[in-house]
Parts: sequence; structure tokens; C-alpha cells
Amino acid sequence: MLKLYGFAVSNYYNMVKLALMEKGVPFEEVPFFAGKTPEALAISPRGKVPVLGVDQGFINETSVILEYIEQTQPGPKLLPVDPFERAQVLALVKEIELYIELPARACYAEAFFGMQVPDAIKEKARTELLEGMASLGRHGKFAPYVAGETLSVADIYFVYSVSLACAVGHKVFGLDLLAEMPGAKALLERLEQNPHVQKIAAEKEAAMPQFLAWISSKK
Amino acid sequence: MLKLYGFAVSNYYNMVKLALMEKGVPFEEVPFFAGKTPEALAISPRGKVPVLGVDQGFINETSVILEYIEQTQPGPKLLPVDPFERAQVLALVKEIELYIELPARACYAEAFFGMQVPDAIKEKARTELLEGMASLGRHGKFAPYVAGETLSVADIYFVYSVSLACAVGHKVFGLDLLAEMPGAKALLERLEQNPHVQKIAAEKEAAMPQFLAWISSKK
Repeated sequence: MLKLYGFAVSNYYNMVKLALMEKGVPFEEVPFFAGKTPEALAISPRGKVPVLGVDQGFINETSVILEYIEQTQPGPKLLPVDPFERAQVLALVKEIELYIELPARACYAEAFFGMQVPDAIKEKARTELLEGMASLGRHGKFAPYVAGETLSVADIYFVYSVSLACAVGHKVFGLDLLAEMPGAKALLERLEQNPHVQKIAAEKEAAMPQFLAWISSKK
Repeated sequence: MLKLYGFAVSNYYNMVKLALMEKGVPFEEVPFFAGKTPEALAISPRGKVPVLGVDQGFINETSVILEYIEQTQPGPKLLPVDPFERAQVLALVKEIELYIELPARACYAEAFFGMQVPDAIKEKARTELLEGMASLGRHGKFAPYVAGETLSVADIYFVYSVSLACAVGHKVFGLDLLAEMPGAKALLERLEQNPHVQKIAAEKEAAMPQFLAWISSKK
């Protein structure tokens, strides 16, 4: 059985979890907080989550794990078969990750964990975040899903990255990043009603107190 | 015929160019400086290069373009067929991009274009760059190529990202990022002897004066 290494508070972990649940693929969750111990680095070279454990070894990096799952597992398709359409979905995934998730992530410490982020980093993140959202507005279809008529890996990135980016926008910059994107706003609300997304959110909430205590102990 | 949009100074552009040359796929180079004009944004939603023009439209994001080329074009394989081995190569690509290219890129303005980068951003980049190189040292095989015995897309990322990261390490931080990675150092030297890499480097050098004048006009 596939093993999913990580913890329920990680939005990247939850992307892989949602893909497996949407496909109806059985998997075992293995608590793994990553970090820089030799044991952790033997599982994840960069000491990050999630990691997928398969018979041959470990697979790292969320987008790579999602493509591996698509290639090897049964269930509803989350990527188109046509190479051009597939590339459009993967480009949307990449654009959400590089231009929305990463700048938002640079501000997570301040938005969620009561720490301070230097102004120069916040200013860079703010500019990038606004450009990233504008880019998503140009490339995304929201008809009703990010890449078109069916749920894809782009929606999986969207629900877990854009929701946190919006929280960063609100808490750190006083901005509503979806103000001019009604299609995206409607999709986010729609995806948050998905029963798998709701189950994952409940498991995240249940795991949060322990996670915050762990973060606090590291300060 | 495939159209490659971009300019010869971009290392991402040169990754796609190298892949096409290694596969022996004919392509037309279309000068494209991206940016934020409506015309440019219709080609690239984030206003970036490279872009691949195909019959159906435009494909953005280097890693996505490289997968599309692999899936649709003839010539030597640059990704393994086995899903697990393929995932290892794609994870190495992702690790080079996220943990080496991106932090190095945050310092390009200071390393290459005579501008100043704020200390907070440099400090974050330095930490990330060192962790990224350590990660590559753990995950990369360098036997002799990044992912094993044959040239892959991981080598294409490696030759164009790690070389610039090393220049940033040297110029901005006074560090030799390959000091403890003899296999990686040997591979970089080997790849720089590749005739396609040499042709691309010559075309980059020829395009540099015009590019620097353009950068200078934007300051």
C-alpha cells in the first residue's frame, strides 16, 4: 500500500492526500515531521514533507508525487491525456506554486505563527503575490474548475495554496486577493464543500494544537 | 515547426534550447522579451520566458515545456520510462529549481547587473542556497550524470542553474558552492564541453551586450 509521510497541518501534504482520496486509492498515513536528522534526510533529501513511500523507495516533491500517482494509480483522471491540454494544467500548477504559494509562504511565519518577517521580504512577497494572482486570472478558466470542466491537479493546488495566500493577503497586507476574481472565489467556495476537502480540513484542525506547540518550542 | 520564444541570455530559455538540440528536433527561435504588455501577456500569462509555440497554442513554464517535448518529440530520451525512476529525475529537477535556482535568482540583480539586493533577502537566499546544494549532494548521483548513467532533464537544469548559482555564491557571498561536491564539479566541467552547450553559450555571449543595454535602460 502507498505510504504518505508528513503531517496534517501541511498544505502540500493535504494536496497529495486529496489526490489519493479523489482517486479512491488506499494509503497509509505515516507521521513524519521531516527536519534535518540523518533519518529524516534519508527519506527526504531537503528535509521536507510530503513524501510518498512506494515499494521501490521514496518520492519527494508534491507535483512529482501527483504526476506519479496519475501515472500509476487507477481512479478518476486528474490530468488530461492530450499532451497540450496536460501541459496547460501543469503550467497552471507551476504558476500557482511559484507565483502564489512561494511568495505567500515567505510570510507564513508572520501570518500564522506570531513571528516577524523583514519588511524587504514582505514587500517582495506582496509584489509577487499580486502578479501571481493576476497571472492566474489570465491563465485560469474557472469554468467552473481552474483548467476547465473537470477537477484536475490545478484545483488541488488552487484549494490549498490560494486559500492560504488569501489569508496572508488579508492578515499581512490587508488585501482581498480574490476581490476581482469572482470565478476563482466561487470555485474556492465550491471546493471547500467537497467532502474529501472537508474531512482533510477537520483532520488539519484536530492536528493544529500539537503543531502550534511544536512550532512554539522551536522559537 | 516548434517555435521557441525568448532570448539567448535567459538560462531557462537555454534549458529548452538544449533539450531540443539534444533530441535533434528542428525549431525556430522567436525573439521575445516578455514583459507586461497585453501582447506579451497573451503569450505568457506571467510575462516570462521561455514559451513554446505549438499548433494548438502556447506552453509556458520550462519544466512543463520539457515534459511536453519529451512526450511528443522523437530523439534520445531525457526522462526514464519507469514511473519511479522518472519521479526521481523530476524531483531532482524540482529540487534544483526551488532550492538552488530560485534563491540564487533573488541575488542575480546584485551578482550580474550592478544593483543592490536588500540584506534580509540576501541572508535568506544564502541559507536556502546552502541547504539546496546540500540537498542536491544527498539526492544527486553524479555517476557521472545528476540522476545516473545518462543525460536527463536534471542535467539540463543542473548545467544552467548550478553554474549561475555558483557565480552568485562567489560574487555575492564569497563561497565556493561546489567545494565539497567533486562529482558535481566534474559533471559541470563535462557538460560545459558538450558541443550544444558550447554553441548556446556562444549565442548567449553574442546577445549579452544588447541585453545589458536593455537592463540598463530599465534602471
